[in-house]
Amino acid sequence: MKLLEERIRRDGRVQGSDVLKVDSFLNHQMDVALFQELGREFKRLFDGCGVTKILTIEASGIGIACVTAQFFACPVIFAKKSRTKNIAGDVYTSKVESFTHGKVYDIIVSKEFLLPSDRVLLIDDFLANGSALQGLIQLVREAGATLVGAGVCVEKAFQPGGGLIRSMGVRVEALARVQSMSQESGVIFCEG
Amino acid sequence: MKLLEERIRRDGRVQGSDVLKVDSFLNHQMDVALFQELGREFKRLFDGCGVTKILTIEASGIGIACVTAQFFACPVIFAKKSRTKNIAGDVYTSKVESFTHGKVYDIIVSKEFLLPSDRVLLIDDFLANGSALQGLIQLVREAGATLVGAGVCVEKAFQPGGGLIRSMGVRVEALARVQSMSQESGVIFCEG
Repeated sequence: MKLLEERIRRDGRVQGSDVLKVDSFLNHQMDVALFQELGREFKRLFDGCGVTKILTIEASGIGIACVTAQFFACPVIFAKKSRTKNIAGDVYTSKVESFTHGKVYDIIVSKEFLLPSDRVLLIDDFLANGSALQGLIQLVREAGATLVGAGVCVEKAFQPGGGLIRSMGVRVEALARVQSMSQESGVIFCEG
Repeated sequence: MKLLEERIRRDGRVQGSDVLKVDSFLNHQMDVALFQELGREFKRLFDGCGVTKILTIEASGIGIACVTAQFFACPVIFAKKSRTKNIAGDVYTSKVESFTHGKVYDIIVSKEFLLPSDRVLLIDDFLANGSALQGLIQLVREAGATLVGAGVCVEKAFQPGGGLIRSMGVRVEALARVQSMSQESGVIFCEG
């Protein structure tokens, strides 16, 4: 998606060899006008798939998931990273290894919100090592729901996550696919 | 706001003496069509205040903040609960005591996104003890930005947060104010 690629070229910053900072518009400060265009594109890509729920993971996926859900006219569920006393025992759980934080944590979703009849679209801001999506996929499978696919804003295509998730038979749509990046040459996107 | 009060009466659940579970539509599963109506109401309440940024706190405030920001045509910033390696050193910090989790944590926001010229509206799902809003207010003050006010979906008016924040001279608008609640009598809202 040209709009997102251009925004990353303009406002994204490469740090070291593998960190792409897009926190001025995607995942700390959030440009909701941009999110509307991204949500419209996810709708175009997954139109006709009968999506009944969008599932994301806290925290940075929630904004883009909520704006996107307006186009699908469906609710959002976000998987939580720790058990709170507001969540009762009836939860699906899986594990996620955070690329950013360098640790493993549990994610949970209440069983009452993820039903066997649901057709679930996963939405997240980044796809790098694929751990977050794998965790979400396991929640959907535990619930016996149908997984429609995964929509991510930015895929770091030089990391293994995209290949891994696609090899599981899951449809993955990334609005911008980074082929390579460096502080010297900036961000290079995959063709087509 | 009648729409939200009716939804809480229908789908909210009281647990013990002070927990109001609204996780089927507000802060775990999120009804974005409802969020649009809440966002429209926040816009009506704070119209003409020149809001340039909406500030919220992860995780459950992000969805309502993003949908609301569409009406204000401004970006959202969410305060993060822990330092990640994607955030550089230049941050404002404050402390929040979580009512739900029963612990104190740091919240941070990058200095580059909160400017002295900003007119900031705080948005959150709940106002109970007021600790989250106090933390956000401190971030706004540290930045030297102007605080327009705080919009919360649900205020538990029998807890001290609302009084505390208003006594600081901050305008607080709550779309539903819970006067009292119990498992026997359900949820009673404040008049007017």
